[in-house]
Amino acid sequence: CSYYLKPRLALKGFLVVGLMARVLNFLEKAWALGVSEPKKVIHGMKVGIALSLVSLFYYMRPLYDGVGGNAMWAVMTVVVVFEYNVGATLCKSLNRVTGTFLAGSLGIGVHWVASQSGEKLEPIILGISVFILASAATFSRFMPSVKARFDYGAMIFILTFSLVSVSGYRVDKLFGMAHQRLSTIAIGTSLCIIISMFVSPIWAGDELHQIIHRNMEKLAESLEGCVGTYFKDNQSGHPSEGDSSKKTQAYKCVLNSKATEESMANFAMWEPPHGPFNFRHPWKEYLKIGAVLRSCACCIDALSGCLDSEKQATEHLKVHLRDASMAVCSHSCIVLRELSMSVKTTTNSSKLHSSVGEMNFALQELQNALKSLPTQLILQQPFPDESSENKSNNEKECAPPVLGLIPLATLVSLLTEIAARIEE
Amino acid sequence: CSYYLKPRLALKGFLVVGLMARVLNFLEKAWALGVSEPKKVIHGMKVGIALSLVSLFYYMRPLYDGVGGNAMWAVMTVVVVFEYNVGATLCKSLNRVTGTFLAGSLGIGVHWVASQSGEKLEPIILGISVFILASAATFSRFMPSVKARFDYGAMIFILTFSLVSVSGYRVDKLFGMAHQRLSTIAIGTSLCIIISMFVSPIWAGDELHQIIHRNMEKLAESLEGCVGTYFKDNQSGHPSEGDSSKKTQAYKCVLNSKATEESMANFAMWEPPHGPFNFRHPWKEYLKIGAVLRSCACCIDALSGCLDSEKQATEHLKVHLRDASMAVCSHSCIVLRELSMSVKTTTNSSKLHSSVGEMNFALQELQNALKSLPTQLILQQPFPDESSENKSNNEKECAPPVLGLIPLATLVSLLTEIAARIEE
Repeated sequence: CSYYLKPRLALKGFLVVGLMARVLNFLEKAWALGVSEPKKVIHGMKVGIALSLVSLFYYMRPLYDGVGGNAMWAVMTVVVVFEYNVGATLCKSLNRVTGTFLAGSLGIGVHWVASQSGEKLEPIILGISVFILASAATFSRFMPSVKARFDYGAMIFILTFSLVSVSGYRVDKLFGMAHQRLSTIAIGTSLCIIISMFVSPIWAGDELHQIIHRNMEKLAESLEGCVGTYFKDNQSGHPSEGDSSKKTQAYKCVLNSKATEESMANFAMWEPPHGPFNFRHPWKEYLKIGAVLRSCACCIDALSGCLDSEKQATEHLKVHLRDASMAVCSHSCIVLRELSMSVKTTTNSSKLHSSVGEMNFALQELQNALKSLPTQLILQQPFPDESSENKSNNEKECAPPVLGLIPLATLVSLLTEIAARIEE
Repeated sequence: CSYYLKPRLALKGFLVVGLMARVLNFLEKAWALGVSEPKKVIHGMKVGIALSLVSLFYYMRPLYDGVGGNAMWAVMTVVVVFEYNVGATLCKSLNRVTGTFLAGSLGIGVHWVASQSGEKLEPIILGISVFILASAATFSRFMPSVKARFDYGAMIFILTFSLVSVSGYRVDKLFGMAHQRLSTIAIGTSLCIIISMFVSPIWAGDELHQIIHRNMEKLAESLEGCVGTYFKDNQSGHPSEGDSSKKTQAYKCVLNSKATEESMANFAMWEPPHGPFNFRHPWKEYLKIGAVLRSCACCIDALSGCLDSEKQATEHLKVHLRDASMAVCSHSCIVLRELSMSVKTTTNSSKLHSSVGEMNFALQELQNALKSLPTQLILQQPFPDESSENKSNNEKECAPPVLGLIPLATLVSLLTEIAARIEE
């Protein structure tokens, strides 16, 4: 019998070990996340504090009757409304209060009308009104203007309206109930707002600000890595392959930052003035910068695609264009880093104009190098037919870094203008 | 006195008219959205039906005591769980039921421990347990693996746990309550699932499928528009400027489709087999195709940036490269459309291989045209110094469409491979 049991035991042991390994793996990842972003751990603790406070507050006061009573609305409000950054919390709180208030008053109205119209008509009126309002509100959530700001409010509106209109209470009792509900929600939301704003607050505006200036730095890194790898590759060995390829890939997360930036800008608009940001800080300008950065990242993507292609230019051509290309690249990077600093400190850097000038000068140099290139090659070699064919082929293969840089540089200067406009 | 009133009246009238205009504008937009996407109107109506059904069901049964009782959980479940597509609804339903069940049992356990340990310790134990679990669950929502699938479940877990553990009921009463709550939630979720699956269902898998093959068509359109405009521009007038620029911009929404695709693929995995999709349909492959399409869109972005730059090639060069470039472009478009069709019908098109071959041939032709270009120019003109400078300048300006096409073509052939792998 033990022969049959052993494999089962082994299987069980195997499953247990597998589960343990998974749990350990999960915990390890969680630890790593916590170490790299302690803000998120703090946020978790803030939610814990808020919940314990509101729970105990209601637990201590036995005048409400436990789960069935209104205390739960306060708990629920805290759980649902407490978001990672202040803007989102404010946005959800206002949505919740407004949605509850509007739907509550409308629901009481409909309920009154229905109760006046006799027992037969009552369920019909209620059903139809719920159907119409729920359909309309659900559909309105698809509208882009509603979705951006009042998505949660519309949901709360539907919820409250159907709860109120369907409740079997008389209207005069409903008023007392509505008063209680609104007050518990107000307690919950104000607790959330206070804790999220005063206990190590995380502002959406700050986050957006950081995303933008970090993205600039990432772009500079990628550009440097990309062009650097291309021109170094054949000369020295591969000293720090992993590191440089990681740098080169940095632009990829810039490409996908649109959704984050938009929601951050949206939340940032709800936030009160804080730190260096005034009340009407031009958050929309950040979105424009973000769009320009994304198209820069696109250029870098195309550029690195060209550089990775199998066909490579000859050493001769590479050497010829190397200095000029590297100069353009490094000057672009300087401009990007300069911009990043000036965004970070929200000051208008005086160096910026001169570095843009230098970058444009380097670009001109590169174009000159390109122009002078064929002449040299033709004069060096006796057979124009052969050489020119060879050369044009080479030039075509080598041109990508250069051509990719031209729109990039245009974009960078465009970016400069925008940044300058903001920092003023 | 009427002098003072008039401006006020005018102001009031002005405000009313402004508000009316806003409302009308909103309604107009809503109407346009409804006409262009009737599915969204139907979804709104489905939510309306589900809500009316569940509301009336509970309204008709007076054994529950209105808002305070458990009926509200069914209404709330419907409002919160009913999502646009079937996968999302299933995902949220399962999350809700699992979260409630887990948190409920854990909450009852903690409640029992707390109630056994005396009156003084009880609130302390409850407070600490709520704090620890709420913090941990909130933090776990930041983990990417949890966020993708169990975000909502974690929220429900926190909510239910704090509600149960804080409730003032005795444990034996809690069991009955938990049973009631779970059954109302089960009624709500099953109603949602049935209505969303059987009343004109909207499958996340279908949506993803459509997004992918539409994006391919958009890319083909943009590529055509972009290259077409470049080569036509100087010859004929501007016959359909708005139309072609709209076409050229089509690639932009491909660039920003990442988040949508990922959430769709995530929801699609929850869906049962339907239509042409089997149980283990490789949804992740769609994400790979999506990534390739995005990098294609990036190339088109860089290309159109180059074409829009002020410096243009001379007519002579344009004419020389025109046919070859147009051929590459049209063959790429054919391949893209072929791919789009083959994705749409989930069949492996036999034409695909031959059109890829044709595209590669056209590419080779273009490279030959480029190679032969300088030779001709040099032989035509007597002063190699001048002409070559001029030529290289021109070539540089003209090269973008060509050079942009090379990585694009590489990507397209890469795409072919992936698509072929899937359709097998």
